Amino acid sequence: MPHNGQRMTSYRIAVVGATGAVGREILRTLERRNFPVKSLKPLASARSTGKTVEFQGKPVPVEELRAEAFEGVDYALFSAGATRSRQFAGACTEAGAVMIDNSSAFRMRSDVPLVVPEINAGDMKQHHGIISVPNCSAIIMAVPLWPLHQAAQIERIIVSTYQSASGAGAQAMAELEAQTRAYAAGQPLKREIFPHQIAFNVFSHNTAVAENGYNEEENKVIEETRKIFHEPQLPIVATCIRVPVLRAHSESIVIETKRPLSPEEAREILAKAPGVKVVDDREKNHFPMPLEASGQFDVLVGRIRRDLSHPRGLTLFVSGDQLLKGAAWNAVQILEHLVGKV
Amino acid sequence: MPHNGQRMTSYRIAVVGATGAVGREILRTLERRNFPVKSLKPLASARSTGKTVEFQGKPVPVEELRAEAFEGVDYALFSAGATRSRQFAGACTEAGAVMIDNSSAFRMRSDVPLVVPEINAGDMKQHHGIISVPNCSAIIMAVPLWPLHQAAQIERIIVSTYQSASGAGAQAMAELEAQTRAYAAGQPLKREIFPHQIAFNVFSHNTAVAENGYNEEENKVIEETRKIFHEPQLPIVATCIRVPVLRAHSESIVIETKRPLSPEEAREILAKAPGVKVVDDREKNHFPMPLEASGQFDVLVGRIRRDLSHPRGLTLFVSGDQLLKGAAWNAVQILEHLVGKV
Repeated sequence: MPHNGQRMTSYRIAVVGATGAVGREILRTLERRNFPVKSLKPLASARSTGKTVEFQGKPVPVEELRAEAFEGVDYALFSAGATRSRQFAGACTEAGAVMIDNSSAFRMRSDVPLVVPEINAGDMKQHHGIISVPNCSAIIMAVPLWPLHQAAQIERIIVSTYQSASGAGAQAMAELEAQTRAYAAGQPLKREIFPHQIAFNVFSHNTAVAENGYNEEENKVIEETRKIFHEPQLPIVATCIRVPVLRAHSESIVIETKRPLSPEEAREILAKAPGVKVVDDREKNHFPMPLEASGQFDVLVGRIRRDLSHPRGLTLFVSGDQLLKGAAWNAVQILEHLVGKV
Repeated sequence: MPHNGQRMTSYRIAVVGATGAVGREILRTLERRNFPVKSLKPLASARSTGKTVEFQGKPVPVEELRAEAFEGVDYALFSAGATRSRQFAGACTEAGAVMIDNSSAFRMRSDVPLVVPEINAGDMKQHHGIISVPNCSAIIMAVPLWPLHQAAQIERIIVSTYQSASGAGAQAMAELEAQTRAYAAGQPLKREIFPHQIAFNVFSHNTAVAENGYNEEENKVIEETRKIFHEPQLPIVATCIRVPVLRAHSESIVIETKRPLSPEEAREILAKAPGVKVVDDREKNHFPMPLEASGQFDVLVGRIRRDLSHPRGLTLFVSGDQLLKGAAWNAVQILEHLVGKV
């Protein structure tokens, strides 16, 4: 109930892929943020109809994702993969709903803003019905690097990732848990989602390797970071690796800046930066960890050190919740900006 | 039985820390290599006496590690930590036994060769009774980088590691397994060896952080690589991270070379290099993984690509068995060189 007597504006929200790993987090995030939802329409493929999702303490029936489903919707948050996004973008925007898309379908299109609100919220002004949420690894890297870029101009980024199972969806998380239980029981470990065993192993990201030798994930990190930063030539090298972690990504980052940046200055800048929490306790050996980043909106950053191999180099280690800042929370932040709640 | 009628030379070997994770692998490696052992003396702390270790199918009683134990020993392979190595180095060398030391105790001493046989076997000629085995992460990085350094002169190394539990010993491996079983059983996860939960987590290496912001492991990788390569000024930046893997380390490496090195040329060089196996199948998305490196003597290397961020940059991803090439196998290789078996 609004306290000031005025009727508070509220919105008709559709969540496409509402039963998936990110979709579920979108519902939780809307609740955590007390976002003013007039009506919620959870959409999913036909095999999920009949199910319900819980929202604000009540079960809400899942509806089938069809073109007609977008009638009367103000904002549609998509997390059902690039194919579904391409298939239903037209129906969504023609129905007058703004599409906030977690997939890679439209990210690199010049007429689609690719937005991390802490960095380039202004890009949303020019949207044409679709706003893309960047790749999770790109977001988690960009949030702490942006304030350093503003302060000292980053000239090169070298990043190696430690990516969780959640980036491959709820079934991939379940596979890691199932392999863990099988190992504990002395049974054979089954693979269905990932091409390689994920429990007790690490492997190069399970996306196709392009002509340039980089896999899709790495090329996304490189190209999307450039677009978000408005730095189309920024030199970036990325190596994306899966690790047996459930839901938060970590990244080992080395940057070279135009102006030398001391660790002390970098720490001060990051301590004030939005969306970032400095975790850099050398005495207690306490630095960002995916286990602690899980469930948090902020990206944790630490291991802030001089790069001993370069006169203008600086190193960082970051952990961020892949399902939250890497997807659901960034999408809801975009939604909050669009409705002027920020 | 020697076939040529001559009596084959064989050696009296002591293994210090014979019941530990590395000590056990030394015994297995001596067997795998058919190393000519005249007598085996497994040494360990008093609490292990009464136990036996198996060698060549027979149980051998563990003896207490005391100064007198080195009488009549030709070669002593130490894997019982830096404190024990410092404590017994004098007794060992005074008894005339050559010490091959897996600990960090003497690695940076100018009169102690620090040897990776594929790289600097010649350094052994000047030993004064002690030869050190380098840090495991340094070895696993140095083996594939050395032939590239010879071909094109490496001017900078940027490395991020994915280190297994085995580097912290048998108890750490057991802790990862115990946490895994507890998770599967829905029980609380206990920590004893590692400062942070290792199952489903990654964390900055659990060694003290020095004044320069680098932890001990990182400083070892940097300083030891320089010593092994005879390049005291080589610029290196290392970030050492633990991952929930049992016994093989992986590393994401970017190098800058004086002469530009194409991925094709690097692949050719590595295909011929000793101690290295190229695993670089882009179509099958099959690259080095700790699970496949486990149990192998060779370091697996792949993801051989141009570094898109630097005109003379090249990237690699490597996995090597921490207990074998990172410790036991490198020690036995040194032993083989010393007795002229190579």
